[in-house]
Amino acid sequence: MVKKDLVHLKKRESQIGKEINQRKVMINKKMILVNRPIGIPDESTWNLEEENIPELTHGQILIKQKYISLDPAMRGWMNNTKSYIPPVEIGAVMRAGTVGEVIQVNNNNNFKIGDLVSGWGGVQEYTLTNGEKYKTINDRNSPIYRYLGALGMPGMTAYFGIINEGKIKNGDVVLVSAAAGAVGSLVGQIAKIKGCKVIGIAGGKEKCLYVKNELGFDEVIDYKNDNIYSALKKYCPDGIDVYFDNVGGEMLDAALAKLRMHARIVICGAISQYNNKSKIKGPSNYLSLLVNRATMKGMVVFDYQKDYLNAENQIREWFDKGLLKSNESIFEGIENFHEIFLKLFNGNKRGKLILKL
Amino acid sequence: MVKKDLVHLKKRESQIGKEINQRKVMINKKMILVNRPIGIPDESTWNLEEENIPELTHGQILIKQKYISLDPAMRGWMNNTKSYIPPVEIGAVMRAGTVGEVIQVNNNNNFKIGDLVSGWGGVQEYTLTNGEKYKTINDRNSPIYRYLGALGMPGMTAYFGIINEGKIKNGDVVLVSAAAGAVGSLVGQIAKIKGCKVIGIAGGKEKCLYVKNELGFDEVIDYKNDNIYSALKKYCPDGIDVYFDNVGGEMLDAALAKLRMHARIVICGAISQYNNKSKIKGPSNYLSLLVNRATMKGMVVFDYQKDYLNAENQIREWFDKGLLKSNESIFEGIENFHEIFLKLFNGNKRGKLILKL
Repeated sequence: MVKKDLVHLKKRESQIGKEINQRKVMINKKMILVNRPIGIPDESTWNLEEENIPELTHGQILIKQKYISLDPAMRGWMNNTKSYIPPVEIGAVMRAGTVGEVIQVNNNNNFKIGDLVSGWGGVQEYTLTNGEKYKTINDRNSPIYRYLGALGMPGMTAYFGIINEGKIKNGDVVLVSAAAGAVGSLVGQIAKIKGCKVIGIAGGKEKCLYVKNELGFDEVIDYKNDNIYSALKKYCPDGIDVYFDNVGGEMLDAALAKLRMHARIVICGAISQYNNKSKIKGPSNYLSLLVNRATMKGMVVFDYQKDYLNAENQIREWFDKGLLKSNESIFEGIENFHEIFLKLFNGNKRGKLILKL
Repeated sequence: MVKKDLVHLKKRESQIGKEINQRKVMINKKMILVNRPIGIPDESTWNLEEENIPELTHGQILIKQKYISLDPAMRGWMNNTKSYIPPVEIGAVMRAGTVGEVIQVNNNNNFKIGDLVSGWGGVQEYTLTNGEKYKTINDRNSPIYRYLGALGMPGMTAYFGIINEGKIKNGDVVLVSAAAGAVGSLVGQIAKIKGCKVIGIAGGKEKCLYVKNELGFDEVIDYKNDNIYSALKKYCPDGIDVYFDNVGGEMLDAALAKLRMHARIVICGAISQYNNKSKIKGPSNYLSLLVNRATMKGMVVFDYQKDYLNAENQIREWFDKGLLKSNESIFEGIENFHEIFLKLFNGNKRGKLILKL
């Protein structure tokens, strides 16, 4: 074949591609933040909009999202306040972690069609991006949605939170709130692997049984039915070395009242306070920090980015050895996003909450 | 002289000593804790009692106290709650730091008559002790009462609090509450010596002028007349690296709202809350710890005991070089203890509050 023919053929191929793209206009459904909620988000908070997906420009990839991560932190991103990350803008797609499959590539050597990728794809069916900050998942053994849970942000948060911030060591007494949740369930299991005595706090009998019997925590406190103070007296008579807090409010106060000398409190979240319409409840017992020379430290998982891979490998190894379990509550349909999102706060889920597309 | 005579003489000498002691019965006036106060202590909290000082037994010394230290922490020691130190028992002499002079010694090689000693002598005129935990003061250049202030507990607290706990470094922005007080005034001056920008918080125009003009703080906020939030915005537009808190309450919240990344809050006390009848006000803005990856840590100066001497030498050197100033509010008479003690809380004093006997 002569060179002229080759050039001609390439040109023709490209034209056909364009024609195909033009004929098959793809539609994206995306969840737009339209109102900043006060308190619990209601139906007027988001709006599901449709758009035609434009043609990919040079360097772009198109991801068809498979799973969307629903996290308590998302509630915080909706407030127009200074935080560790800018708020989601009004009119923008709701920010969320995603895993999906690359289905189109226009001159981007980092990705190929069929790649599974995780990233901040947002609450939408398709994400058009230059691929920056997206990570290819090569692991074909783990279920892909685990990259939103134990092998994703919640896993990283639990790992660095309890090891690097909580500085756990063999024999420590560790208290974990939201123990049946995405992060808490992993925090407790990792602390067990590291030789700690682990007490969880969860809401309701069913969750508590799960935490103790399936996840293997030493003890569990049902905050809906037990008195936390007397339960702590019973389960940690000599006090707590580490409290990993996802909840804030009353539980943080109860933990403060039971600190051991040089205890560490890791402030990872405060789900009990996220939908507060009034001022957040500060921990009345904070002077226990003084009495016990204890530390209360805030953490944001993004700070550990450069070490994610090590943690991921370690967590995968623990899964392979049967030392770690995870649980996902998966619900389907972007149309149901609002209702599913609220499960983060009303307790109607276990482990990692995921929206399947 | 034969041995027999020697024995006889020694015996006679001891008898004469006893007779002298018996003839001159010494009276001690001591302030007894008789009721645990709720809120601000009132007249019924203490009772001034008299007792005959008994004869010294083997190994004992008798100290005539010269100055008694009055500290906000004393309020905490009166509550029957778990703390870093056991509460003062009902019926016991009120605990307090003291400096005084050894006036009698019975077979104790560690002390001799005329020694100046500091220790926990309590609110009383004389202290009978085996001398354990008492320290001889050999320094004849500093006023002795400074060993209750800049060269005593407040000095140690300020030194280790801002250096070891606050981890200040050159260029840090440091905020200090109770800046005209015994500890706060030293914290700010030490931070200045270490190259920090220092902002103080004090109550009233007079104290504020003192903090800025005499102690050399960069800026001062008058919490009685200024809006703390807007003053902080003005004086530390880029936020605070270290907040040294002696106050708690509203000021702790304001500081939390202005933290820089990786800021440190040293919890040394909470004078605004010590006389609270209801629950202590917890810091509503504590989630700023998370946003800013900041640390809030409690400190108790006793933990640094083994390093006191180094700090003392350093502080003395700073005094000698004119880099450090101290101020003492000295009031006289154990009969006036109650009224003088309340000056800790009503703001009617400056620097270290001392009771002179």
